[in-house]
Amino acid sequence: MRIIEVTDSVSLKRDLDAGTSEQREAVDAIIEEVRKRGDQALFSYTEKFDGAQLDALLVEESEFLAAYEQLDPGVLKAIREAIENIRDFHQRQVQQSWMTTKEDGTILGQKVTPLDAVGLYVPGGKAAYPSSIMMNVIPAQAAGVGRISIVTPPQKEGTIPASVLVTAKELGVTSIYKVGGAQAIAALAYGTETIQAVDKITGPGNIFVALAKRAVFGRVDIDMIAGPSEIVVLADANANAQYIAADLLSQAEHDERASAVLVTPSSDLAEAVKTAVEKQLETLPKREIAAASIRDYGAVYVTKDLDEAVDVTNELAPEHLELLTEDAMALVGRIRHAGAIFVGPYSSEPVGDYFAGPNHVLPTNGTARFSSPLCVDDFVKKSSIISYSKQALKQNGASISALARLEGLEAHARAIDIRLEDE
Amino acid sequence: MRIIEVTDSVSLKRDLDAGTSEQREAVDAIIEEVRKRGDQALFSYTEKFDGAQLDALLVEESEFLAAYEQLDPGVLKAIREAIENIRDFHQRQVQQSWMTTKEDGTILGQKVTPLDAVGLYVPGGKAAYPSSIMMNVIPAQAAGVGRISIVTPPQKEGTIPASVLVTAKELGVTSIYKVGGAQAIAALAYGTETIQAVDKITGPGNIFVALAKRAVFGRVDIDMIAGPSEIVVLADANANAQYIAADLLSQAEHDERASAVLVTPSSDLAEAVKTAVEKQLETLPKREIAAASIRDYGAVYVTKDLDEAVDVTNELAPEHLELLTEDAMALVGRIRHAGAIFVGPYSSEPVGDYFAGPNHVLPTNGTARFSSPLCVDDFVKKSSIISYSKQALKQNGASISALARLEGLEAHARAIDIRLEDE
Repeated sequence: MRIIEVTDSVSLKRDLDAGTSEQREAVDAIIEEVRKRGDQALFSYTEKFDGAQLDALLVEESEFLAAYEQLDPGVLKAIREAIENIRDFHQRQVQQSWMTTKEDGTILGQKVTPLDAVGLYVPGGKAAYPSSIMMNVIPAQAAGVGRISIVTPPQKEGTIPASVLVTAKELGVTSIYKVGGAQAIAALAYGTETIQAVDKITGPGNIFVALAKRAVFGRVDIDMIAGPSEIVVLADANANAQYIAADLLSQAEHDERASAVLVTPSSDLAEAVKTAVEKQLETLPKREIAAASIRDYGAVYVTKDLDEAVDVTNELAPEHLELLTEDAMALVGRIRHAGAIFVGPYSSEPVGDYFAGPNHVLPTNGTARFSSPLCVDDFVKKSSIISYSKQALKQNGASISALARLEGLEAHARAIDIRLEDE
Repeated sequence: MRIIEVTDSVSLKRDLDAGTSEQREAVDAIIEEVRKRGDQALFSYTEKFDGAQLDALLVEESEFLAAYEQLDPGVLKAIREAIENIRDFHQRQVQQSWMTTKEDGTILGQKVTPLDAVGLYVPGGKAAYPSSIMMNVIPAQAAGVGRISIVTPPQKEGTIPASVLVTAKELGVTSIYKVGGAQAIAALAYGTETIQAVDKITGPGNIFVALAKRAVFGRVDIDMIAGPSEIVVLADANANAQYIAADLLSQAEHDERASAVLVTPSSDLAEAVKTAVEKQLETLPKREIAAASIRDYGAVYVTKDLDEAVDVTNELAPEHLELLTEDAMALVGRIRHAGAIFVGPYSSEPVGDYFAGPNHVLPTNGTARFSSPLCVDDFVKKSSIISYSKQALKQNGASISALARLEGLEAHARAIDIRLEDE
């Protein structure tokens, strides 16, 4: 792990994988085929890419029952607790429609309407994270979305992991379709005989899924295309080096391109964390991935004081930020750019990944400068409401026409004038 | 104007101009040149494209004073009234940061932080709309954005229209730079000696501006790339055909590709509006543009009843929707997709373009299914806050570790365990 004295500008930015032209062409061809042949295309791609011969795309009731049999009761309890926490947090984000009235009869307002339908992509195999299902489904449900569908590639035997089925069922979502890749995104965007089209597609996926989401964007909405995960720990001399090392490694195990960074004014802490990272790495199951991440994208920035450490942190604009300093809560107001802020020694980043309540879908790659965690607002849209009375138009019509004519838009002005002339 | 009985699906969608490959290459080259040569590139492109030889990019105080001299006092009054209304509406959109606490010491929250800096593009010449400045600057100011810059191409003489300068000055924005096109977008995204980089770029522009915005998206945030304007009027037999015709034409005069549509169960009204549109067109200054729009993208859909008219309207998901029916306000709840809803006979669409208060930057091309008017939220970002106490981690640590291990992420589990072992 590199220890660096900050002298110049710092950045977490890595190039996003934009796909090769072969990949983009393959994705376009798959989308075209799904539009043309519908379900038949889905069945044949699933056989080709996932090795599964299916009779039906929709998961059956009996498969949910079997999944509950398989799941450890302790895990089921944890899933239920997490759902409750995440639901509680997201309910607090719900915005109300509002209206305001004036004495002249004017009514202005903002109507909040849930999206009609959304689709969630759940990756297959080891990346079929139950927590992703919670983090995407719960804000959509809190928003009041009427129809939520999940697509996920089946295993060779045509099955879906028990933890996925149980989590979805616990959330009340049973429209789960056994299809993955670009073909699943095409089905959600355009609809097939079995899968109804949706208005927005969210959830992580591999490069083919990301390219397909980009290709259908505009026809439907999509969430962000996330980059590799990041953590920045901002710590002072009294912070626990073992905790920090463990937290850095919890990001590093995600991906060889994940980035784990410590920013501290203490060169003693810098050395202690470096040593602890190396030591803890030794026994980690995913040590090869984590070691590559630490080597290529890990760093300790040593600053001249805490103020400079705050500046460096804001410049990095990290996805996850831990504050392990004295009176950490008082620093929150000085953090201008971060997806999620974990305050104090017991707020380890995994607390937020699974359990505490806030969303784990967060802006990466420096986009926390202008982007937000996935939230209820991402599953509603707003409409302005404007109701002018005769009196209100009479009072203000001349000003409105004047502004229209200032912009050279005579028909705009006449639409006002024709109503005033009627007097 | 075509009168159509609704038999099948309807749509307002038109292909967006994605630019030619020559245009995209030209834009990429301009961006590269601005990154390399900074202000010098801005001066030479401004000479080349706008025919203006400038000594300085920044508008000077004396130019604002001269602009006030030029402006009609009635127009200035209208600008001030509009600013007051728009500010009042957008202030109501401001979201507060919030926190919630639990007895075990847990603190969860959502911090709302304004963007550091935004840039507004204002087109040149006849499209230099003061209303665009108000509609982009006011939500950014209500959000608390610290630094707002305006870029706009100068006229040949090196000047900026008086209405633009006065509107900006009335809003308190004086960082106005005389540069337009892709070069202005590049300057806002990357910064030059004179123009500081921003976090988000908003505002309309021609195809070169749109392509440049797409090219820098990701480095900075951008607003939507808007399609041509649209209006749908939903009216019953008692609606005033002259009002409707005037309102349809007020959209049609914007652009040959604008779309103006009436949806009504009354074939008498359909005929009356068709006749009124033809008649009103005759004396319109922009009659050629408006006539082309009505011919190519105008339509009257005649439905079997009001319920079907509501369904057709939701299917169209228009940018602007006028409800000219009996008890129009009661219909608002049934409108699921529309950028702005104008209720009743005196709420002509231009009321919202300039004056009433809600934003005139609205989702086009059917995207009202999932997009919202420009608003204060577009100029802030949120950060989640998670603070767990020792007690809270002790109580919940086992569940968190169980979920981490369920997903095969051992380092995540150990980051929790190491803190519990310390007990």
